Amino acid sequence: MSVFSRTIGFDADDTLWHNEVIFEQTHERYRALLANYHDAATVDRTLFATEMRNLELYGYGIKGFTLSAIETAIELTGGRITTEEIRQLIDLGRDMLAHPVNLMDGVTEILPVLATNYRLILITKGDLRDQERKLAKSGLAAHFQHIEILSEKDAGSYQKVFSRHRIEPEQFLMVGNSLKSDILPVIELGGAGVHIPYHITWAAEHAAQPVACAGRLFTLESMRDLPGAIQTWATG
Amino acid sequence: MSVFSRTIGFDADDTLWHNEVIFEQTHERYRALLANYHDAATVDRTLFATEMRNLELYGYGIKGFTLSAIETAIELTGGRITTEEIRQLIDLGRDMLAHPVNLMDGVTEILPVLATNYRLILITKGDLRDQERKLAKSGLAAHFQHIEILSEKDAGSYQKVFSRHRIEPEQFLMVGNSLKSDILPVIELGGAGVHIPYHITWAAEHAAQPVACAGRLFTLESMRDLPGAIQTWATG
Repeated sequence: MSVFSRTIGFDADDTLWHNEVIFEQTHERYRALLANYHDAATVDRTLFATEMRNLELYGYGIKGFTLSAIETAIELTGGRITTEEIRQLIDLGRDMLAHPVNLMDGVTEILPVLATNYRLILITKGDLRDQERKLAKSGLAAHFQHIEILSEKDAGSYQKVFSRHRIEPEQFLMVGNSLKSDILPVIELGGAGVHIPYHITWAAEHAAQPVACAGRLFTLESMRDLPGAIQTWATG
Repeated sequence: MSVFSRTIGFDADDTLWHNEVIFEQTHERYRALLANYHDAATVDRTLFATEMRNLELYGYGIKGFTLSAIETAIELTGGRITTEEIRQLIDLGRDMLAHPVNLMDGVTEILPVLATNYRLILITKGDLRDQERKLAKSGLAAHFQHIEILSEKDAGSYQKVFSRHRIEPEQFLMVGNSLKSDILPVIELGGAGVHIPYHITWAAEHAAQPVACAGRLFTLESMRDLPGAIQTWATG
């Protein structure tokens, strides 16, 4: 049990550190590799379709993305892509896995302050090894009492996290960049959410803004505004 | 907290269900695919070297294996492997992910009986999505009070599991097929282990048998002998 009555959950990718920007750079290199065969829009659309088709089997993460990228490249070139280019795709995936972790502005100042008044939990989805590595590189692990790496973030998986850590939804606030994965399921369960949009959102994370939930849904431009919003929630 | 004073941890792959045999079938198909280029021993040795080189970045699991298999095939054929054959390797990986779960003999009878007297925890390593899928297919999830999917199973990660669930090492026994991942780290921490060897052991899991630990290390031929060994441990 925690000495604090309130718990704050943090998403990781594109909330604590930059992530989608790395995929965006990779997509540019991928389009360039296939530019002799197809226009960028076709490449993007076909890769996304492959990713969605494989999601159930591969789950989220860079290794599944790399396999989908190889499969799509073979498909889009009618098999004419060279093995040297496939090797480059494997390297592209490895570069992403080895990429340095760049923290979002304000994170290193704000987390230690919040940790003195709230129980902080990291709740992220994706590849186990990759998320652990990013967390280790981030230097932020010590601020969190628990680390939850899930294969999916929906109402069911948040519910399991709540029972595991004896969290009352009314005492829980989730901070994240994805309405679909971070905010909507938590609001549905009776918790609160702070949405901090990232400048790029992966198509699979698109969701409609929920109707207004007075005092339970905050939208911020920057992590720097988080302490104020949490103050409003905790005293509301 | 649990109502039981003693906890039994179970490994999953090749302890509760068959796994290495699926990799073995895949290796056979892989050797056949490369038979025109190299003998089986060279193929096996090179693939294993690639896997070990990539382990830090990819971690355990089928997606990383598939990427290593593609990389090795390009290397071993000097780039002459066809894209159609690479597509076959992707399918090989997908077949492994979609493979049915075949339970080990005795598991369905023994788990419910043990669950009435002990807290059972599943402790496995590998790919999050893949392990969750296998557990769901196995129909065994309800017997376990906690599921721990780790990226590595060493003394440090068992220590974290112990603190998370308030387990006293002296009250903990781990059942598994791998001396390296299931038995040695638990013995090191003061717990007990039941080693049930599988007929195939992945080279990366090879380890020397520990020196005798009276009453703390049992080696069994079959899961069917488990209740007796646990009885000896619990009353020892």
